[in-house]
Amino acid sequence: MRQSGKARSEAFSDGVIAVAITLLVLDLHVYVDGHGSLARQLRDQWPTYAAYVVTFFVIGVIWVNHHSLMMLVDNVDRTLLFYNLLLLLAVTTMPFATSVLADYLRVGGADARLAVTLYGAVSELMAIAFTLMLHRMIHAGLIIFPVDRTQSRRALQRFGLGLAVYPVITVIGLWSPPVMLGLYALQTAYYLFDQAPILGNTIVVGPPAGQQTPQ
Amino acid sequence: MRQSGKARSEAFSDGVIAVAITLLVLDLHVYVDGHGSLARQLRDQWPTYAAYVVTFFVIGVIWVNHHSLMMLVDNVDRTLLFYNLLLLLAVTTMPFATSVLADYLRVGGADARLAVTLYGAVSELMAIAFTLMLHRMIHAGLIIFPVDRTQSRRALQRFGLGLAVYPVITVIGLWSPPVMLGLYALQTAYYLFDQAPILGNTIVVGPPAGQQTPQ
Amino acid sequence: MRQSGKARSEAFSDGVIAVAITLLVLDLHVYVDGHGSLARQLRDQWPTYAAYVVTFFVIGVIWVNHHSLMMLVDNVDRTLLFYNLLLLLAVTTMPFATSVLADYLRVGGADARLAVTLYGAVSELMAIAFTLMLHRMIHAGLIIFPVDRTQSRRALQRFGLGLAVYPVITVIGLWSPPVMLGLYALQTAYYLFDQAPILGNTIVVGPPAGQQTPQ
Amino acid sequence: MRQSGKARSEAFSDGVIAVAITLLVLDLHVYVDGHGSLARQLRDQWPTYAAYVVTFFVIGVIWVNHHSLMMLVDNVDRTLLFYNLLLLLAVTTMPFATSVLADYLRVGGADARLAVTLYGAVSELMAIAFTLMLHRMIHAGLIIFPVDRTQSRRALQRFGLGLAVYPVITVIGLWSPPVMLGLYALQTAYYLFDQAPILGNTIVVGPPAGQQTPQ
Repeated sequence: MRQSGKARSEAFSDGVIAVAITLLVLDLHVYVDGHGSLARQLRDQWPTYAAYVVTFFVIGVIWVNHHSLMMLVDNVDRTLLFYNLLLLLAVTTMPFATSVLADYLRVGGADARLAVTLYGAVSELMAIAFTLMLHRMIHAGLIIFPVDRTQSRRALQRFGLGLAVYPVITVIGLWSPPVMLGLYALQTAYYLFDQAPILGNTIVVGPPAGQQTPQ
Repeated sequence: MRQSGKARSEAFSDGVIAVAITLLVLDLHVYVDGHGSLARQLRDQWPTYAAYVVTFFVIGVIWVNHHSLMMLVDNVDRTLLFYNLLLLLAVTTMPFATSVLADYLRVGGADARLAVTLYGAVSELMAIAFTLMLHRMIHAGLIIFPVDRTQSRRALQRFGLGLAVYPVITVIGLWSPPVMLGLYALQTAYYLFDQAPILGNTIVVGPPAGQQTPQ
Repeated sequence: MRQSGKARSEAFSDGVIAVAITLLVLDLHVYVDGHGSLARQLRDQWPTYAAYVVTFFVIGVIWVNHHSLMMLVDNVDRTLLFYNLLLLLAVTTMPFATSVLADYLRVGGADARLAVTLYGAVSELMAIAFTLMLHRMIHAGLIIFPVDRTQSRRALQRFGLGLAVYPVITVIGLWSPPVMLGLYALQTAYYLFDQAPILGNTIVVGPPAGQQTPQ
Repeated sequence: MRQSGKARSEAFSDGVIAVAITLLVLDLHVYVDGHGSLARQLRDQWPTYAAYVVTFFVIGVIWVNHHSLMMLVDNVDRTLLFYNLLLLLAVTTMPFATSVLADYLRVGGADARLAVTLYGAVSELMAIAFTLMLHRMIHAGLIIFPVDRTQSRRALQRFGLGLAVYPVITVIGLWSPPVMLGLYALQTAYYLFDQAPILGNTIVVGPPAGQQTPQ
């Protein structure tokens, strides 16, 4: 009957992620008058649609990863909640960063590079928040099973590697924003189908309880 | 205490569908100045209100169907999650497709036909995602009871038939968009009151546990 | 582990109502340039703020009533789901009706009367949907305890009486919209603090299990 | 299978808070044409970004506090639901107050002072609603464990002290809005990391069941 802190944190995070992923659509709009035919508007706005689809899956993957991470804990403390809020701040800012990116991709120049940097910075904030969450979960003993030093070091190394991905993609985006969107799409596909468990155990997305023991 | 992958997938999907169905209202607006009397604006905007109500029930039926489908599984894997994201992408795009349709219904011509095609394409993406979900559920063994070959073939055939419905409705819409909206309304009513179980078993919307065995 | 149809219906309805009640705020906005001082704008827009607060509590009461009604059932069928969708359609349309009402209260004349009628019509759709839901719950045997003829007749009469309230308030609103808003506020206060159980039993908002038997 | 009034109140509140915190992003926007370079727009709009981040954490802390408060009760009555609605009204109004504050910070003068007052008034409504909720929980016997006179007096005194914080911050904001935003940030950090339990018991955010007894 009573909901745990963990369950309500998940519910609140699910809500924020669900609203943010749906608000992306508010950036799509056409004008009946004065902007040319519908066909031409849809063609001219291709960066908006590309950014919409890519960001949709970026946020979708954030949800999947958030879920995988929260499955490892039975409880949350205030520090973990704060890192979770940092993650949600990145998520709620994504519709803005996506809109700016789509608008300035068509403009090009220094403004397009700044838009690429902004999109990369929001992605990096997300990666940092995820790493802080994992770090806190391990070091505050919130994980549901015993984690040895090797497991936790490897998991944090892997997350740390993730921190380097967005700056690299962003630098490539300074040279070619469409290639950057392609790399985001690739990376999203990798995370969506990657089955490697976070802590070297066999937990995947939704396992029966009996499979949750470490190897 | 711990939420399964299935429960959180449902919660996240419920959230996205709830936000998308409510965002439809943002397409309704009148202007105090310079657009004529309120009565005239409401009359002139009839395609907006017709598209609003029809799409509301289209998304409502998606929720009902999503719920019926998820009742058949106890667990989700990453492939099913990806197909679920595809479905949610169709759902979040619906407010945009609806807005474009409503705007260009009044304009007519090639632009109206393109708007009809866009609306049909988003609907078809939704039908494809549902079919992929059922396919994955059957072939990855995620269904909660044993499914024999005949049951699964019939269920997939029925969903496959559904894939043909939207292109047909869309072609009719190229000739008459209002007739298309009427057909969407009819089809929505059919799904809302159709009691045929997905896999030839007796599961309807919310059965007591004892009724969930196949016939 | 498996969510019932009832639990997901509640979760979906909670989501839609939560989004709709929050979207009301999108109607509040001031302009830095060309519309006078902030003080003057806030003063001139009083109908917007009055309509915002009243509609906030109208939707809040809908949530409370929806919750009280759903506590009476253990299960939902497709007809009940359809009536529930009708109710949610009224809820999602409220931000639009509120915005129109606030805009035209300041204009007055025939347009203000039409705006009042629209607001009343959306309220009446809500009352009709609630009555249909109760009717279906009783006649499809979805109530969690035995309901005798007297109980169900009285409950339906009471809901039927509710159907007459909105037309009366609307007619008064044709003469004075501010009085109408006041009556909505009064009626909302009545529902918020009314402890009378729907079916003559002792169920109030969130009772311990032992109190849920009929008298 | 049946959700308690408490669980649905939490779910609804989570939904409203999640939508409101995500809607804050709608206040961020840049213009491709006629407003200068992207860099300049981002620089000129610093009050918008500062207000966005601060209000994000203000609402985040409201969620944490709401959660801590609801963990103390097993049940809700209609009066508590009404106070909860008052709290949610403050939450849904925050995106508007934030937008006004950000717009007029750049303008200065009497309008900026009015914007500061509006922001402070919405914060104070939130603090009042929280205090009313605690008061009702104690005096209607909704707390899950016995609360003695000393505990309840101290808890209410502490909440009452909170009521004085926002007026003080607001008065400082009349003199310097940026200092006000800094004080909000400080106060948010204090609440996020404050471990003091509301009723002198050991309940923190998400305790195991065995720790929920009073000292």
